[in-house]
Amino acid sequence: MKNLQTEDNNIDFSKLKKYLSDKKEFIDERLDICIKNSNNLKLKESMKYSLMAGGKRLRPILAITTAQIFDCDIEKILPIACAIEMIHTFSLIHDDLPAIDNDDLRRGKKTNHVLYGEAIAIIAGDALLADSFSHIIKNTPSDVSRDDLLRVIEEISLACGSDGMCGGQAIDILSEKQNNIDKETLKYIHTHKTADMIKVSIRSGAIIAKAKDFELEALTDFGNNLGLAFQIVDDILDVIGEEKELGKKVKKDENKITYPKVYGLDASIHIANIYTNKAIEALSIFKDKAEYLRLIAEYNITRKF
Amino acid sequence: MKNLQTEDNNIDFSKLKKYLSDKKEFIDERLDICIKNSNNLKLKESMKYSLMAGGKRLRPILAITTAQIFDCDIEKILPIACAIEMIHTFSLIHDDLPAIDNDDLRRGKKTNHVLYGEAIAIIAGDALLADSFSHIIKNTPSDVSRDDLLRVIEEISLACGSDGMCGGQAIDILSEKQNNIDKETLKYIHTHKTADMIKVSIRSGAIIAKAKDFELEALTDFGNNLGLAFQIVDDILDVIGEEKELGKKVKKDENKITYPKVYGLDASIHIANIYTNKAIEALSIFKDKAEYLRLIAEYNITRKF
Repeated sequence: MKNLQTEDNNIDFSKLKKYLSDKKEFIDERLDICIKNSNNLKLKESMKYSLMAGGKRLRPILAITTAQIFDCDIEKILPIACAIEMIHTFSLIHDDLPAIDNDDLRRGKKTNHVLYGEAIAIIAGDALLADSFSHIIKNTPSDVSRDDLLRVIEEISLACGSDGMCGGQAIDILSEKQNNIDKETLKYIHTHKTADMIKVSIRSGAIIAKAKDFELEALTDFGNNLGLAFQIVDDILDVIGEEKELGKKVKKDENKITYPKVYGLDASIHIANIYTNKAIEALSIFKDKAEYLRLIAEYNITRKF
Repeated sequence: MKNLQTEDNNIDFSKLKKYLSDKKEFIDERLDICIKNSNNLKLKESMKYSLMAGGKRLRPILAITTAQIFDCDIEKILPIACAIEMIHTFSLIHDDLPAIDNDDLRRGKKTNHVLYGEAIAIIAGDALLADSFSHIIKNTPSDVSRDDLLRVIEEISLACGSDGMCGGQAIDILSEKQNNIDKETLKYIHTHKTADMIKVSIRSGAIIAKAKDFELEALTDFGNNLGLAFQIVDDILDVIGEEKELGKKVKKDENKITYPKVYGLDASIHIANIYTNKAIEALSIFKDKAEYLRLIAEYNITRKF
């Protein structure tokens, strides 16, 4: 198995691992109460099943970690962080559908439609997306400026919409099985399907924490580059990873446009490193305040799952 | 064919028909520019196809007509009205999917998945829902209060989410083919699957137009009753309507819980009339100002499509 690592193999991630694990536990607790039980038990159960199916919570952690650069009260960003994870979960449920990627397994567990049927899985995804916006408005503390809140909602809606995540996903599907492999299309897919939601997680944290324009710009640059590095690492792991470690089928991207397919494996690893370095450089103005964001970028490139 | 009419058969709807037709034309023009072309042509085409497939535009017309009771500038409510139609269109695309209602025909035209394939149809629905929120925020004039705008977005998100339209749709599907026909479940489905989005269209118009609390309450009452009457009429037309006039398959509700199935046809017509009368009564405080809302409720019960 090829090794996918930064040039510096000696970074100690134990502090980050503890941080990620604490934050994940904290977010899981809050996510667990996002879906209120009602007399619509089966739908709620289906939504909750996928929401609580053991995600890494990367996006909410990025939102919180960014806000905390500016010593922002975590409660101000938490409803937004949870909503972003709800949207991410919606996208996973729909991606796994028979008509799209037709995956039976996700994070080592049965996918939503396998357990609840296609109809409920489609509606559970829809409902997670729909509910995410009221979740933000209902739960964000009233001392967050209304203008900032509207700006964040607009950015999240754009990031997951037809020119964001959905757009990337559509082009990904339409490009399947095409022989004509095109680097621009590949970057479009990765930017919109993956990086847009990662970027908006970071921007949301910065906006709610009242970052200045130049700080928001630097963090946007970080988000874009981290998002691309993250998806390229995912592509690479699909080729070299172990099914058991990943908790999902590997080699499932065989019909898709991926970095390893377009650039080859070694060049893909190199490109992932370039984006990682660019991401880290963008953080320089924050010095030690951005320690965890920097560690997350470094850790991404060493991860095995 | 049974006649589905109010007790007063002599209402002249020519004025209303002209009003509806003018408003539909106006809304169609605005909807046509809601979906911006980008390099994601196929997805945008698919979204636009369903959005422009000839809907009656009932929900946006209700939002605008309600706002105009209070002499509200139409531009203040128009982006919200269009967003509600985008959400309605998303729900139709997903309802028609093979895994849900499996309909090939809608308003006399091929359904989205027949034309674009299931994967793109799923994503087109997702994207219409996702984009609707940024559409509101980007296009609503800045003199609309930020608090009112957040309130409307929250209400729309709830109305289409897991305790609203998606919730009603889930129970509708889970109740199919059940022998145990239950009036409470039937009302739950109709209230949430249909009435919630009709109600929120009306409430949005009232909130943006700065209606007073007692006026908002009366309009909510109107919306609830109109929404239920509207869905019961739909159920009835599925039994007695002509496929050609409806532009969709009739008798397609055979596996579903419907009013005619639970109450019989005559009683269903009677119940639709009761809800219509309740809706009209709720408008009494507005006198002539609510003329078009009253006519819409009266017209609903006479419609053949």
